[in-house]
Amino acid sequence: MPTWERKDVVIRTMATGHELTAPAFFCHGKSPRPLAYLQANVHGGELQGNAALLALFDLLEREEPLGSLVLVPRVNPVSASQQVGDYVAGVYDFQSGQNFNRGYLYLTGPSRSSSAACYVDVDAFAVVNVNAPLAEIRDGFRSALKAALGAVRAESAEWGMDMRLEFALAVQEMAVEADVVLDLHTGDRAPRYLYAPQGIPEAVRAFGIPWVLEVSHRFAGALDEASFVPWQDLSDAFGRLGRNDVPRFVDGFTVELGSMNSFSLADGKEDARRIASALRYYGVLPGCPEPPPGPQTACAIGDYRSVMAPIGGLLDPAVSPGTAVRKGDVVARIADPSRCRSLPPRSRDAVVEVLAPDDGVVILFHAFSSIPKGARLLSMMTKTYGG
Amino acid sequence: MPTWERKDVVIRTMATGHELTAPAFFCHGKSPRPLAYLQANVHGGELQGNAALLALFDLLEREEPLGSLVLVPRVNPVSASQQVGDYVAGVYDFQSGQNFNRGYLYLTGPSRSSSAACYVDVDAFAVVNVNAPLAEIRDGFRSALKAALGAVRAESAEWGMDMRLEFALAVQEMAVEADVVLDLHTGDRAPRYLYAPQGIPEAVRAFGIPWVLEVSHRFAGALDEASFVPWQDLSDAFGRLGRNDVPRFVDGFTVELGSMNSFSLADGKEDARRIASALRYYGVLPGCPEPPPGPQTACAIGDYRSVMAPIGGLLDPAVSPGTAVRKGDVVARIADPSRCRSLPPRSRDAVVEVLAPDDGVVILFHAFSSIPKGARLLSMMTKTYGG
Amino acid sequence: MPTWERKDVVIRTMATGHELTAPAFFCHGKSPRPLAYLQANVHGGELQGNAALLALFDLLEREEPLGSLVLVPRVNPVSASQQVGDYVAGVYDFQSGQNFNRGYLYLTGPSRSSSAACYVDVDAFAVVNVNAPLAEIRDGFRSALKAALGAVRAESAEWGMDMRLEFALAVQEMAVEADVVLDLHTGDRAPRYLYAPQGIPEAVRAFGIPWVLEVSHRFAGALDEASFVPWQDLSDAFGRLGRNDVPRFVDGFTVELGSMNSFSLADGKEDARRIASALRYYGVLPGCPEPPPGPQTACAIGDYRSVMAPIGGLLDPAVSPGTAVRKGDVVARIADPSRCRSLPPRSRDAVVEVLAPDDGVVILFHAFSSIPKGARLLSMMTKTYGG
Amino acid sequence: MPTWERKDVVIRTMATGHELTAPAFFCHGKSPRPLAYLQANVHGGELQGNAALLALFDLLEREEPLGSLVLVPRVNPVSASQQVGDYVAGVYDFQSGQNFNRGYLYLTGPSRSSSAACYVDVDAFAVVNVNAPLAEIRDGFRSALKAALGAVRAESAEWGMDMRLEFALAVQEMAVEADVVLDLHTGDRAPRYLYAPQGIPEAVRAFGIPWVLEVSHRFAGALDEASFVPWQDLSDAFGRLGRNDVPRFVDGFTVELGSMNSFSLADGKEDARRIASALRYYGVLPGCPEPPPGPQTACAIGDYRSVMAPIGGLLDPAVSPGTAVRKGDVVARIADPSRCRSLPPRSRDAVVEVLAPDDGVVILFHAFSSIPKGARLLSMMTKTYGG
Repeated sequence: MPTWERKDVVIRTMATGHELTAPAFFCHGKSPRPLAYLQANVHGGELQGNAALLALFDLLEREEPLGSLVLVPRVNPVSASQQVGDYVAGVYDFQSGQNFNRGYLYLTGPSRSSSAACYVDVDAFAVVNVNAPLAEIRDGFRSALKAALGAVRAESAEWGMDMRLEFALAVQEMAVEADVVLDLHTGDRAPRYLYAPQGIPEAVRAFGIPWVLEVSHRFAGALDEASFVPWQDLSDAFGRLGRNDVPRFVDGFTVELGSMNSFSLADGKEDARRIASALRYYGVLPGCPEPPPGPQTACAIGDYRSVMAPIGGLLDPAVSPGTAVRKGDVVARIADPSRCRSLPPRSRDAVVEVLAPDDGVVILFHAFSSIPKGARLLSMMTKTYGG
Repeated sequence: MPTWERKDVVIRTMATGHELTAPAFFCHGKSPRPLAYLQANVHGGELQGNAALLALFDLLEREEPLGSLVLVPRVNPVSASQQVGDYVAGVYDFQSGQNFNRGYLYLTGPSRSSSAACYVDVDAFAVVNVNAPLAEIRDGFRSALKAALGAVRAESAEWGMDMRLEFALAVQEMAVEADVVLDLHTGDRAPRYLYAPQGIPEAVRAFGIPWVLEVSHRFAGALDEASFVPWQDLSDAFGRLGRNDVPRFVDGFTVELGSMNSFSLADGKEDARRIASALRYYGVLPGCPEPPPGPQTACAIGDYRSVMAPIGGLLDPAVSPGTAVRKGDVVARIADPSRCRSLPPRSRDAVVEVLAPDDGVVILFHAFSSIPKGARLLSMMTKTYGG
Repeated sequence: MPTWERKDVVIRTMATGHELTAPAFFCHGKSPRPLAYLQANVHGGELQGNAALLALFDLLEREEPLGSLVLVPRVNPVSASQQVGDYVAGVYDFQSGQNFNRGYLYLTGPSRSSSAACYVDVDAFAVVNVNAPLAEIRDGFRSALKAALGAVRAESAEWGMDMRLEFALAVQEMAVEADVVLDLHTGDRAPRYLYAPQGIPEAVRAFGIPWVLEVSHRFAGALDEASFVPWQDLSDAFGRLGRNDVPRFVDGFTVELGSMNSFSLADGKEDARRIASALRYYGVLPGCPEPPPGPQTACAIGDYRSVMAPIGGLLDPAVSPGTAVRKGDVVARIADPSRCRSLPPRSRDAVVEVLAPDDGVVILFHAFSSIPKGARLLSMMTKTYGG
Repeated sequence: MPTWERKDVVIRTMATGHELTAPAFFCHGKSPRPLAYLQANVHGGELQGNAALLALFDLLEREEPLGSLVLVPRVNPVSASQQVGDYVAGVYDFQSGQNFNRGYLYLTGPSRSSSAACYVDVDAFAVVNVNAPLAEIRDGFRSALKAALGAVRAESAEWGMDMRLEFALAVQEMAVEADVVLDLHTGDRAPRYLYAPQGIPEAVRAFGIPWVLEVSHRFAGALDEASFVPWQDLSDAFGRLGRNDVPRFVDGFTVELGSMNSFSLADGKEDARRIASALRYYGVLPGCPEPPPGPQTACAIGDYRSVMAPIGGLLDPAVSPGTAVRKGDVVARIADPSRCRSLPPRSRDAVVEVLAPDDGVVILFHAFSSIPKGARLLSMMTKTYGG
């Protein structure tokens, strides 16, 4: 049986002195590695990942892991508490405007006004370790990343640590240890879909999720990228020295478990099965990954595009999220009764049809059915492959 | 064919001087009366009434009304614009905290710090008109109500009109003319249900809506009450003089068209059919009301009760809205992963089951699936009858 | 030396399970009574009362109280955390729209849908105790009030306790014990001023605050009223039985310590002196109250009136808060550049002057300098006396 | 006398179809150029620039400009309307989290997922125009910038224009014409200070503002940078070809007119004088700039640093904004009464003193006096020069 620990990690300290914490559950299996880090609910309104983690608790009581896991449900109590009226508005920090999933540190790039100690120069590291064995490279690089995080923390002592950095460090100090990182989100109104690093079809198959967005090896602030891009940078640096046997040691995924605001314990069991299958692929759990239940369709992240609302109004989707469409198909209707300027008023005067600007698959619609002009109406995959 | 007019009624003037208006469509049928007043979307997130009104536009092109109608979709642009992140938080005014459906004027009660001219003393009116014919009573009382509204507006000139009063007057100056008032709302997560004045079963049958809350003759701030209670007060005043032939001349309803945030043009056609059936009952539209498609279950408004969330957490309803339950049935589960204090963590440690405190019908659940302790988890009818 | 205790009272439990608490400091002086209850910061943006309570901590180390005190700074962590961008919007509950200072229980009136056990029938109490000595009346009535609070708590077990009630009970279970209650607030942009029960000039003198609003004996939801009105009701009930020697045993005040958002530890020492003077009057602290430093001007609460902004725009007050004005004086200018409709644009076309509608004293202006039409622009005392 | 035009520029279309517009006033003086573009109130709570523009209206009636001006008060009605309770939270877009002053287009860099037509390649432009006269370079480059804006607008037709881009285009299509751009902001709690491109001391002297932050030639999203950096890039590109006589033709400034939420028509006249002096320097207004009223102290933008709140609590600044301090000086106190854990409670246990981490000048404090841990407590200039 695995042994368990729980730590409550401070995420923010309120103006009244109360500490908002995230409960981190550490499951020590047969071996410390491979280590998986899973968190849920970075965005306050994206709830279903918590159901998946609860179901994983139960699954881990039945199956002893070969490696180890860190599971952090409700990782962002700040965001989860941004409730105004009936809804949680949890993407952007009420205090700073910051998207909670865009503030992580790029540990192999000079992304902040901080000293050279605060990131790892992969080329310098590769030169020093050009002849080292792989295990030594992996361990040494992880130590270097941890040292960089430590330097960031130390340097913030003088001028104070901003709240965004406090959150990033709290998460990344846990996630940096991991061999695979799963950040559990949801779409707005969406089916299950997956952000995966490009070029790892077997891992993607293990998740069995039908819609896949392949992320390029470029840091844009999200946790999946913050987790795998430094290791890709390392691999590339060795490649520049002519050493091509150094793989990217760490993968990171953003797993989108349906729609914002949905929460189902029953569905959480299904989500846990998908995740467990991926963890089997990575050797964290025993056994083989399950074959995907159906075809998987992918596109490059650059071909995942959004349609902005052409008018303000009331949104009536014409297709379900997860539907293949052709360019010119009606994908949504937006109704604004104030457009009925000629009399007698007719419903068709109020309605603007939105057409698909390209062939593809509609993945998500705006979460709320009232939308101002210029807000994201839908996002769709284009130039898809597989399937 | 009816003739139509449109007026854009100013609801609020912003700090930048922009006027937010509601589009009011006046449909003059064969006769000015009976007159129906219908509005939608007082609460910014309750959208479906707009679909019903758009469908009514089309229906009114096919069927000439016997009476007349005023239709006001998107009646509250202030509330509709209270969007924070993905959602509209439209029940309470961001500026004043006020529930937008609790600020109407009680025109037969001294409800405000205003002079005696600002309301109608029903007993004095009855004394003066004790021998008047019914039509004269009806017209005279409506004139008196309109004079009271005029006095409120006039008296606000000196100290300025507060924004809540500006909204109430904008709506009530239209609605006071009507013989029947329909205020189109939605529940949080709910089926279609109806707030109706108690004791009018035939009108209720005409709507055909399965769940009915019977409203007592007491003003609590909502538009349905603001519309019918003064006329009930009048009837009661005549009764106190021994004249029992003066009916309540005006009815008011709050029609709940499903869940917050839902918007469907197709469902709007069904909703328009329900509303048209009621308007046939009231003689505004030609023809007979439709028989209800199934049984109707009612309870007194005082027996419509709410369960408050016993803990904070993630809400997973155990029954669908519109389900009959027995006292002690599990109606919802709330999961808070931080409750997993003993290790290994188990999902059941995180979950609190909520039991029905009484027999009845669960009508609605909290709109969002994350809920703090003490927020309304669900509302249910108890002591139901009919069905 | 007094002995001290601290309790952290749970005010709300968040959706993530975190408890938000208020720190309650109990100072037991030479005698349990007279007991003063002081709290600060019910409205999240009204901060200065905390400075006063911190200064009282220090004062109570220098002067042993004759009676006892309960001091609760930061009593409302929910409200204090309603920060959006730079500001705290702490008057209305983001979850319920409720003004945090209007939800207290009226313990001698049937104000809620609860049983007869949840309030005290003062007339019945007076009949039973018509011949009792005063001390017995006082103690018996306090016990009855506490029993009513207990019944409210007990009855909420079945259907759950709503968050507003949880807050009210948390505060009132402490405040009900007290002989004098001080609720420390601030105005929007305001000088120090005082809400006091009408007819207690000596107590008012002890505070030494120049502007005084005399509150009638009618419950409207605030803590000062919730504290003293039941005792006034009791006195009145005995009066109706012909026994006129039963005084109102408890007083309650709302003390407005300047402007919202201001916080000064140095000014807090001055505020503590004012409060200490009042506590000397009530026998909680030793010594005599200080004479007021200048004249005190009062008006009845019904003559404290607000001017609503006649247009939306940018607010430039023409007088300082706390200035006597004559009817017709310019008290503010509101500028809306979009009003410059004729060209060349001139600043005077943008500006609307607001005139005082009556003689009086301007007490407060809207906190923010951008204001929509119909928001409270200023409040002023009229029909003043004293001074 | 100049001739005037007014256009109301659409900034956003709401979900109810209402258009929010900014009033743009075009003042055509003796010559179309030099052209100054001035806007105020991009951030909804930063109001004083409107007073300056109103005073400029009056000044322009007295003095005929040599060049021309565009003046846009209340440029951002979206932001100005983000009022929650008493305050406007206008820095971040409630819908997108975006800082309203960070979304402008970088017209000489490939900053967006758009085609090459959407920005100007300065090196290619320089090669083509390497021998052109300066006036031709200036006019040709402005045409190229305008073509780029046109391409952005055209390309957005297919997938829709997001609201942030709509705002950027509305502003930049006006500002791109100008020779000097002034964006009128305020600090949080601050004196008047100025963001100026580095290396233009005479222009800085003309403003006469005591505190100056010198902005490097690097685009970070703000309007001043969006205005001058492309022209600096052009100058640099010619320099790379060995032609060093091409100056930066356009300057851009962010002018900070005191504190957020302040609005004074009287102070606006003083602000207009400062701005007019700068416009004289640029030849837009006649006459010579005024000498600065006192010393001016500057630092590089990279040496303008922020202290983050070390604890959550109540903020009591120990110095006024605009005060020189030494490393180790107390600059603020933060009080959190919940820190009084030992009894008796003492105010000093609640208070944490914040010390200046370096020598410099404190420019601003957090606008609100309640602050969570990790929010910006203050910003200060370090490594100052001049003065």
